[in-house]
Amino acid sequence: MREEILEMGRKARQASHLMAMANSNQKREALERMASALQNERGSIEAANLKDVHEAEIKGLGKPKIERLIISEKVLMEMIDGLKEVSMLPDPVGELTRMWTRPNGLRVGRMRIPLGVIGIVYESRPNVTVDAAALCIKAGNAVILRGGSEAFHSNRCLAGILKRSLVQAGLPEDAVQFVETTDRQAVLDLLGLEEYVDVMIPRGGEDLIRFVTQNASMPVLKHYKGVCHVYVDCDADLEMARNISFNAKVQRPATCNAMETLLVHEAIAENFLPAMAEDFRRAGVELRGCERTMALVPGCGTATEEDWYAEYLDLILAVRIVGDMDEAIGHITRYGSQHTEAIVTSNFERAHRFIREVQSSLVLVNASTRFNDGFQLGLGAEIGISTSRLHAFGPMGVEELTTTKFIALGSGQLRS
Amino acid sequence: MREEILEMGRKARQASHLMAMANSNQKREALERMASALQNERGSIEAANLKDVHEAEIKGLGKPKIERLIISEKVLMEMIDGLKEVSMLPDPVGELTRMWTRPNGLRVGRMRIPLGVIGIVYESRPNVTVDAAALCIKAGNAVILRGGSEAFHSNRCLAGILKRSLVQAGLPEDAVQFVETTDRQAVLDLLGLEEYVDVMIPRGGEDLIRFVTQNASMPVLKHYKGVCHVYVDCDADLEMARNISFNAKVQRPATCNAMETLLVHEAIAENFLPAMAEDFRRAGVELRGCERTMALVPGCGTATEEDWYAEYLDLILAVRIVGDMDEAIGHITRYGSQHTEAIVTSNFERAHRFIREVQSSLVLVNASTRFNDGFQLGLGAEIGISTSRLHAFGPMGVEELTTTKFIALGSGQLRS
Repeated sequence: MREEILEMGRKARQASHLMAMANSNQKREALERMASALQNERGSIEAANLKDVHEAEIKGLGKPKIERLIISEKVLMEMIDGLKEVSMLPDPVGELTRMWTRPNGLRVGRMRIPLGVIGIVYESRPNVTVDAAALCIKAGNAVILRGGSEAFHSNRCLAGILKRSLVQAGLPEDAVQFVETTDRQAVLDLLGLEEYVDVMIPRGGEDLIRFVTQNASMPVLKHYKGVCHVYVDCDADLEMARNISFNAKVQRPATCNAMETLLVHEAIAENFLPAMAEDFRRAGVELRGCERTMALVPGCGTATEEDWYAEYLDLILAVRIVGDMDEAIGHITRYGSQHTEAIVTSNFERAHRFIREVQSSLVLVNASTRFNDGFQLGLGAEIGISTSRLHAFGPMGVEELTTTKFIALGSGQLRS
Repeated sequence: MREEILEMGRKARQASHLMAMANSNQKREALERMASALQNERGSIEAANLKDVHEAEIKGLGKPKIERLIISEKVLMEMIDGLKEVSMLPDPVGELTRMWTRPNGLRVGRMRIPLGVIGIVYESRPNVTVDAAALCIKAGNAVILRGGSEAFHSNRCLAGILKRSLVQAGLPEDAVQFVETTDRQAVLDLLGLEEYVDVMIPRGGEDLIRFVTQNASMPVLKHYKGVCHVYVDCDADLEMARNISFNAKVQRPATCNAMETLLVHEAIAENFLPAMAEDFRRAGVELRGCERTMALVPGCGTATEEDWYAEYLDLILAVRIVGDMDEAIGHITRYGSQHTEAIVTSNFERAHRFIREVQSSLVLVNASTRFNDGFQLGLGAEIGISTSRLHAFGPMGVEELTTTKFIALGSGQLRS
């Protein structure tokens, strides 16, 4: 196994050199061909997917897990649309982000280049195979994919289609490689390829992400969890605050940018919380509050210390009444995960200060936390949301899959 | 020990929150006070340094190692000047690098913020204590310093001066912390503080850097080595090529951006190499060439496969004659370290192609490799040169010690 994975690393490095020099038309063509091929080869995709689903049923996997496996008509169309959208994004490679002249006449600039080889380790949903590979290719990288064992046949079938499309566009087929084994040792081998893989991106639950982080010899781009807050200030427009809080919690509670804790200024708590709680009650949201919240909201449960740290990903919400914004920021700093926090306020100074002082990957004023998403922020497709600060912090789009090198144009300059 | 290091981590995280909100004047004042304090407390610095030097002599350390330890008048002045220069750099924190408007009216931007807590593990030269801390502070970070045991007393004395200056400027003294033990276990403990240290920067030899990389639980910014190339094209101005090659090799051979291998196009080898070799001979440079080079240059030694990989850091140079630029780029890709490569040519297409196709942290046309340095490229002081591609690639100045968060300004936007 070790030797096979090593060989994949070598091939990926080789392919990455060619990909770095591919022009925009070739990359666009490859992505368009992939979109057509998914359409044309839907029969074989369905067959492979059915195999995974059957095996999952025999193994007795739970219903939610099996549902995530299924490549429905809708899921297939989303993959195809995703490929088309990524194909239309501007090519980031070769962009000169800045250029300046030194006193000795040397012209110095920073040029955007691909990262090189990207490893993706992911679970269940087979659409990641297509979505992640598309972004890596657009940014001129080679990618090694290692999907979950439950989706093995689907992933292998999809990866094969991607490889054939690459070749048709004149690009190296090794720019997309799929680890063709469900052996767990292969993941460890892959994580050891420091020399050949420039960055590893895990996609999945917290356990997977911790496993990759602890064992990877190369840098890892990751986010552990989203414990997102909305702080309703004393100067908030209360109707806006209700709408934003409701949207942040209820619109899609299982996502990482959904609100998990609501912080309310004591001065407006009495006017705000009972009506807000009624909205939540109707939507089936269970509330767990501090003592003061419980006094204002009949039927509200008790929030323990654990609740302030919790990423429920469900219709449960922790609620705390705070004395002022500093207490709210203190709470966020202590219990938050640096993912997404919003303030609702009409006060200029506090809006300004909240933006400055809260160090999360997205800080919003008067808008829902649900906007922390590559598409919503205008970056195009994303490969994940980073909550570690190095290289990328927040949604990672095609630009985050590149780096910059320095260039210098001279006329014989020497160092003295 | 474990508990002490953990406590340092906690204090650093605490301090980093305050540092992130420090305004530019406070940070500038702190750096200016540090400069004055180094001047005023030179007596105690000298005494501490003398202690280190004595201990090194007793231990029988070699002369070059002892020389690197000594804080001479010149070294002290360089530290003071460095502090003053960093204090004058523009404050990167709070800069809004971009801002755009979404179709729903949400205004989205990226704001520069500090990385948080930076760990520096370094060897011998005590000036790193001051130079590295200054850059970290300017960028609004807290820093934990772990210097080499040989410079322990000097480092501790310098760190104490920095801490007192921070307090005088109203900044938290824990923004600079120094690991006050030479116990090796403390380094391992420090490398385990993923929760409290956002990035680790090793400064020193390849062994130290590998040790840090293998044991760090947090991301590492590093460069292993600089195997830098100059390629003299068939269309080179031969006098310029001689000057650049000479400067790249001889001006300071022990630096990471000095040329280690010279690649020469076969069409001009006969005109170029004998005169070039004569320049090198006079400067005491030992040449190790390919067979064709040896045929042209009497007295040239044989380059083995090992020589192409070598970072001599000395007056030794490997020389190879190549058939064309593609062969030169192939050599660089195979044997290089992605540090610095230069082409000397008057041909537009090849200059353009070399820049595009060589993926090193600095790619030059018609200038010496010795320019790969933060000051020389106009970034101000640098904390090192990264040859890994994530986050920073090339010289790391004050901006590379920051990251960006997203901000979004709304008027009640909800996600539908």
